[in-house]
Amino acid sequence: MIFLMRRLCVHTITTKPLSLEDCLVQFPQRGVSGITIWRQALEGRNLGTVARQVRDAGLEVVSLCRGGFFPATTPAGRQTAIDDNLKAIEQAHAIGAPLIVLVCGAVPGQSLVESRKQIAEGIAAVLPAAEQAGVKLAIEPLHPMYADDRSAVNTMRQAHEICDALGSPIAVGIAVDVYHVWWDPELKAQIDLAGQTGRLHAFHICDWKTPTTDFLNDRGLMGEGCINIKQISDWVDATGFTGHREVEIFSNKWWSVDQNEFLDQIASTYARLYS
Amino acid sequence: MIFLMRRLCVHTITTKPLSLEDCLVQFPQRGVSGITIWRQALEGRNLGTVARQVRDAGLEVVSLCRGGFFPATTPAGRQTAIDDNLKAIEQAHAIGAPLIVLVCGAVPGQSLVESRKQIAEGIAAVLPAAEQAGVKLAIEPLHPMYADDRSAVNTMRQAHEICDALGSPIAVGIAVDVYHVWWDPELKAQIDLAGQTGRLHAFHICDWKTPTTDFLNDRGLMGEGCINIKQISDWVDATGFTGHREVEIFSNKWWSVDQNEFLDQIASTYARLYS
Repeated sequence: MIFLMRRLCVHTITTKPLSLEDCLVQFPQRGVSGITIWRQALEGRNLGTVARQVRDAGLEVVSLCRGGFFPATTPAGRQTAIDDNLKAIEQAHAIGAPLIVLVCGAVPGQSLVESRKQIAEGIAAVLPAAEQAGVKLAIEPLHPMYADDRSAVNTMRQAHEICDALGSPIAVGIAVDVYHVWWDPELKAQIDLAGQTGRLHAFHICDWKTPTTDFLNDRGLMGEGCINIKQISDWVDATGFTGHREVEIFSNKWWSVDQNEFLDQIASTYARLYS
Repeated sequence: MIFLMRRLCVHTITTKPLSLEDCLVQFPQRGVSGITIWRQALEGRNLGTVARQVRDAGLEVVSLCRGGFFPATTPAGRQTAIDDNLKAIEQAHAIGAPLIVLVCGAVPGQSLVESRKQIAEGIAAVLPAAEQAGVKLAIEPLHPMYADDRSAVNTMRQAHEICDALGSPIAVGIAVDVYHVWWDPELKAQIDLAGQTGRLHAFHICDWKTPTTDFLNDRGLMGEGCINIKQISDWVDATGFTGHREVEIFSNKWWSVDQNEFLDQIASTYARLYS
């Protein structure tokens, strides 16, 4: 018998070598209850069919990853980004994802202040479509080591400031990923604030390895690194958050092993961590 | 004839393949006026002789790199760090360096709050010796990507907080390195505060490349990356800072080329940037 872990979600990118169809078989067999679907996993598939397959697998779609990348040096480039985010909102709606995670974007050499302004403008441009589709948007602050070309939003404080600038629409919140924010001395206070303002839309877990050998693809399984995941989880839960804890691991190391054994380890590690 | 650049300092680690003796010949030939000496460059040398050689070369010793690494999981480990910092103070005094740069340290898995407490205690323990030797100490906030094992001080705000906790002794200040702090939305305000409090002890320059392929040794020469070095320099100068701009580049790429040509590029790039 499988012990269902009511708050365990796994991102399709975590087991990148598996097809979406394999994920739908293998995730439930480990007691995983939620799935966050990356857009590349949807390529070439009928979205209505995917929605039905996920439902039939007994999985809850937690979010669609990812929108964002709003800044660009030209108006045409920014419009392309807006169009892509509108498409992501349609996709999320079609597969029944209640949330899109935004990796907000940055342009090397463009000031971060200007990029954050363009991010706010981009979110504002797609917000009506998101609201109409019943899809929420989560700004994910990215670690400052990604400030050059991935996100000009590098702290929860900055994510809150963008929510404020937009007039605090209910649909726009924050995705807290321990990998990106664990070092932030304001982390607890900003998580508290996210709880108070109804902005805590998603919670991602993995670990920070010492040494880390790749800027993108050397994340650790929980327990492999130095992040106090349990403490941050407690802060998140203390706000009243009852959503999924999403395992999002980019790792050349883990992608090179048998993915079913990796899923076994994710499930057992998660069960130990939150027992 | 050589045009002397009154504020250009180069770190010995920047041209790591060169011996200290080579640095003392090559730096002045490019108009470099200051040198920051890394401790490994002193190994096996008589410090009094080094002091004389540097003076004879017409170079000003800007600082000694580096002290710090105070946190440890045991009292004995912390005492070892204090002893090493006392030794660094003696070395700085012996070679005529008015300043030691502190990479403060961190222990993977130990809370950053605890590590910062140990850092403050470590600085307090060596402060009397530093004051007696006439050697200042500069806390260098390190990029958050080094929070696991190199420094629990990751923003200028945190560096200021440690200075405050120590009672704001004149000897303890901050080393601003654009590589570590360029992303910080509070950067200008914290530089202003450093100026107002007399804490702006050092200013380091290099660049952040996109992509960066190594966590330690892929820094860029000014202009190779996305950091708005000139703007940050202007903020620093606006505080009244008139000290050296120290070129500190760790780079496997640059270390693999002819170091004299690299020095030519440093000098010409610097001259263009600040013309």
